[in-house]
Amino acid sequence: MKALLEEFREGNVRALARVLTRVENRSPGSFEFLRSVFPSSGKARVIGITGSPGSGKSTLVNRLAAEYASLSDSIVGIVAVDPSSPYSHGAILGDRIRMQDADTSGKVFIRSMATRGHLGGLASAASDVVTVMDAWGADPVMVETVGVGQDEVDIAKLADVSVVVLVPGAGDEIQALKAGIMEIGDVFAINKSDMDGAGRLESAVRAALDLAPEGDAWRPPIVRTVATTGEGVEQLREEIDRCHRSLGQDPRTSARRRRAARERLIRILQERLVASVLAACGEHGLEAAVTAILSRERDPYSVAEELLEIVSPGRAS
Amino acid sequence: MKALLEEFREGNVRALARVLTRVENRSPGSFEFLRSVFPSSGKARVIGITGSPGSGKSTLVNRLAAEYASLSDSIVGIVAVDPSSPYSHGAILGDRIRMQDADTSGKVFIRSMATRGHLGGLASAASDVVTVMDAWGADPVMVETVGVGQDEVDIAKLADVSVVVLVPGAGDEIQALKAGIMEIGDVFAINKSDMDGAGRLESAVRAALDLAPEGDAWRPPIVRTVATTGEGVEQLREEIDRCHRSLGQDPRTSARRRRAARERLIRILQERLVASVLAACGEHGLEAAVTAILSRERDPYSVAEELLEIVSPGRAS
Repeated sequence: MKALLEEFREGNVRALARVLTRVENRSPGSFEFLRSVFPSSGKARVIGITGSPGSGKSTLVNRLAAEYASLSDSIVGIVAVDPSSPYSHGAILGDRIRMQDADTSGKVFIRSMATRGHLGGLASAASDVVTVMDAWGADPVMVETVGVGQDEVDIAKLADVSVVVLVPGAGDEIQALKAGIMEIGDVFAINKSDMDGAGRLESAVRAALDLAPEGDAWRPPIVRTVATTGEGVEQLREEIDRCHRSLGQDPRTSARRRRAARERLIRILQERLVASVLAACGEHGLEAAVTAILSRERDPYSVAEELLEIVSPGRAS
Repeated sequence: MKALLEEFREGNVRALARVLTRVENRSPGSFEFLRSVFPSSGKARVIGITGSPGSGKSTLVNRLAAEYASLSDSIVGIVAVDPSSPYSHGAILGDRIRMQDADTSGKVFIRSMATRGHLGGLASAASDVVTVMDAWGADPVMVETVGVGQDEVDIAKLADVSVVVLVPGAGDEIQALKAGIMEIGDVFAINKSDMDGAGRLESAVRAALDLAPEGDAWRPPIVRTVATTGEGVEQLREEIDRCHRSLGQDPRTSARRRRAARERLIRILQERLVASVLAACGEHGLEAAVTAILSRERDPYSVAEELLEIVSPGRAS
């Protein structure tokens, strides 16, 4: 453990991979590890990239990562939140290290996360993975997610700058408006912009953005990209950087960070509290309670109160 | 409160709406209310309907509800989990009662839920709304959700039978496979099946279903529908009913219900525990902790441990 921490601090990439696996699996000692690396975090630019399956988002993320890698000596981190199989615990790459090579000269580190099986929820696990990559020295750290949902929104909040990827056709005009994705985006990328309907989609996005309250310091730009050829990727990177600089001067940024830190603390609390309850009443006690609920002998609300009494007697209710 | 409970038990629809609002907002007394109505729940058939925005899912749900309403004297309940705006706390209809009239003779009760702002999470709030509708006497209760994500999967687990709605084109062939939605569906509806590509989509779904392990008692049927005209809706309803009957005899159904009840209990616990911590340390204490975390003076993992000590001193860790 101590040796691992040392290797991690020296910037060893295999140590990073091993630490991430431990943290994601909540192996013994992972909380202590998170505690000791946390003070070194907070330096990386965190960029969220959100888009539906089929939007070419992964290709775009890889291109962006290569672009960033070409500009500095830092290793670029990618956290891919992969919902490919919610019931099979998704695609955990585990200790496998996928380092891009081709055009990025081995300077991109990718971590695929399962979307299921996290006791404290996906957003909590994703926060920790970002913290670890950040503390290790990756910069920027890009977080790639799909679509919509509370988890997605929570994950988007981890990012300083969020990019929403849309594609022409596919009803994205409606989707963009319907799914509330407009509020998430600081920068919009219209990918596959060589396809029919790119202009129509851009107009729809612009119209939706025009509905935003006046006086916002930052007006989200719309960038047309073709991830497969790399077209527009440099401009997209420039807009992301411009947004980073603009947000740094925006007083609302600190309010946003405060909210994110608070929600994260609450998520950690929830995870730790549930672990204590399970430790106190045991697997057998929990299963007996579930049986009583299933037969409608008990109700889950009263049972929850009782379990709380076990773990924290006499608490204020 | 007592009067409200009485009216609720008499089947008053305005009482139902008021109770749902209280439960969703966690107004004082809502847990007591849930406790007292829980024993009357468990009778309704719970049907999940999942599909991306633009799939015509809402129209299909309305048609199905009308179909069910025509077959019995029960009022059909619809819980629409509406992600239209994650940041603006969505579309809470509040006390507004939307009763369908047209072809359903006022026998359908619809509740739209916000996807944000639930302390215990969306799935917890949705479970409670389904329990209340069920205890009130609605049958079936249909839960309408979009797309993918952990919340979605958790909500799908509330349902005895889940219908996945797909549409031709729109890259749904890829989406279906990529998003792990295949594992959720007990019945597949190909809506807008008068459009080009319905046959291709059906083949893709069938091929994906053929990958499922042999020996499953239930083979998910695929039904072609055109929600706008009502075509195929009766057949869809028949397949849902057939699935309900088949699952009733499947030993795995009780294992599935047990898992769902267990997860629900844990979600209630989380919500109650966080409420206790907030009560114990106060808003001021929490904000001070967040400030220390933001400056990297403290780390959130140690702070969480400390807050736990406050609420449950001497607990097993």
